[in-house]
Amino acid sequence: MKRRLLLVSNSTLHGSGYLDHCQQHISHFFGKDVKRILFVPYALHDRDTYTKTARDKFKTLGYEVDGIHEAADAVDAVRKAEGIFIGGNTFRLLKSLYDNKVVTEIRRRVLEDGVPYMGSSAGTNVATFSINTTNDMPIVYPPSFSAIGLVPFNINPHYLDTDPNSRHMGETREQRITQYHEEADTPSVLGLREGSLLLVEGNKATLLGTTKARLFSRGKPTVEYDPGSDLSFLLTH
Amino acid sequence: MKRRLLLVSNSTLHGSGYLDHCQQHISHFFGKDVKRILFVPYALHDRDTYTKTARDKFKTLGYEVDGIHEAADAVDAVRKAEGIFIGGNTFRLLKSLYDNKVVTEIRRRVLEDGVPYMGSSAGTNVATFSINTTNDMPIVYPPSFSAIGLVPFNINPHYLDTDPNSRHMGETREQRITQYHEEADTPSVLGLREGSLLLVEGNKATLLGTTKARLFSRGKPTVEYDPGSDLSFLLTH
Repeated sequence: MKRRLLLVSNSTLHGSGYLDHCQQHISHFFGKDVKRILFVPYALHDRDTYTKTARDKFKTLGYEVDGIHEAADAVDAVRKAEGIFIGGNTFRLLKSLYDNKVVTEIRRRVLEDGVPYMGSSAGTNVATFSINTTNDMPIVYPPSFSAIGLVPFNINPHYLDTDPNSRHMGETREQRITQYHEEADTPSVLGLREGSLLLVEGNKATLLGTTKARLFSRGKPTVEYDPGSDLSFLLTH
Repeated sequence: MKRRLLLVSNSTLHGSGYLDHCQQHISHFFGKDVKRILFVPYALHDRDTYTKTARDKFKTLGYEVDGIHEAADAVDAVRKAEGIFIGGNTFRLLKSLYDNKVVTEIRRRVLEDGVPYMGSSAGTNVATFSINTTNDMPIVYPPSFSAIGLVPFNINPHYLDTDPNSRHMGETREQRITQYHEEADTPSVLGLREGSLLLVEGNKATLLGTTKARLFSRGKPTVEYDPGSDLSFLLTH
């Protein structure tokens, strides 16, 4: 398994710029061999502006960015990609990935060819088993909640601890994930707090970043993991 | 149009019990002629416990509650209902409404027969045009995001103002609704803050409760409405 993934909780951390908080991990992840990164801006309405934001940031790290929407043939763009980066609204993103018929090709490139895949927020959601644990608003209807399936578990990005002082009565994040696990055959959910990211290399998964992650598994107590933890066991399902 | 709806933002308000904050509106809405209310507990995993919660509360207001899941035939239960009340996780709720083939029958009973329909939170979402503006986690995949369609607009229950002091970088509620309106042909979205509810009687809609509501319409500035406001214009689309 050549799989190499960098799954980031959030693109912007409070008090810093776009992707600043994980830029060293990004440089290390894509390395020197990758020159051009295929950016998938499907998740935001203004794809050109979104691509410019990514292009400007990656330029400072020494990478060129190509927007998949600029290519004549999206599948062909994936076929030729040296590296892939995805972010945005999860529903719009997954629907566009299906509409443009690139779900299968991304899976093949990443799992068989070892093309490095970086996702943040929605791009992290769509990399996993399914988008059932996104926080996003379901603004469009995708043909399935099944995602690219680069890992066999789910992630909840922007994971938020329950605020004991809140007067808001909407469900807490923990309650929502617990409701998901009331459904049959649902996989584990890794709650990635803002500032944390997961590096997957083949069959090895490592928690990186500055915050702990919280693991929810159906029928089991939740477990907290410190940055640096080996989470490879999540890949063996 | 016999339509009578009571669409509540949230079932529990901080510091008070289940449905306490709107109990006078409930009594006035169902009135003296309704004796039994059909409760639809599809949205929570433990339907019996959820039904007991509703049954206990409605008993104090003088109503008997029947759980739709206790009926031998769900469509028949809707056909005979004197009043309907629905709440819970929006995705699980809408999927179960479709699975049990009661979407059309509820629409018919409410719009043609004038059966009073009360929804809170998810029950409010499914009463509207679509569930595209729910806050819930998409824990199951419904066959459509189109909802019962008792009104031609959408509601965002538990509407939350942007907290200028938050360090959390997930999208604000306003950003999410704005993203929805980037899509073509999307209806207005009424943001119902916790503590507010909308009463619909035929072609008249009135904002009730203790908090303002915020109206988002595609391509227009947002507008705030005070409790007591006449929002009937939302019904004429």
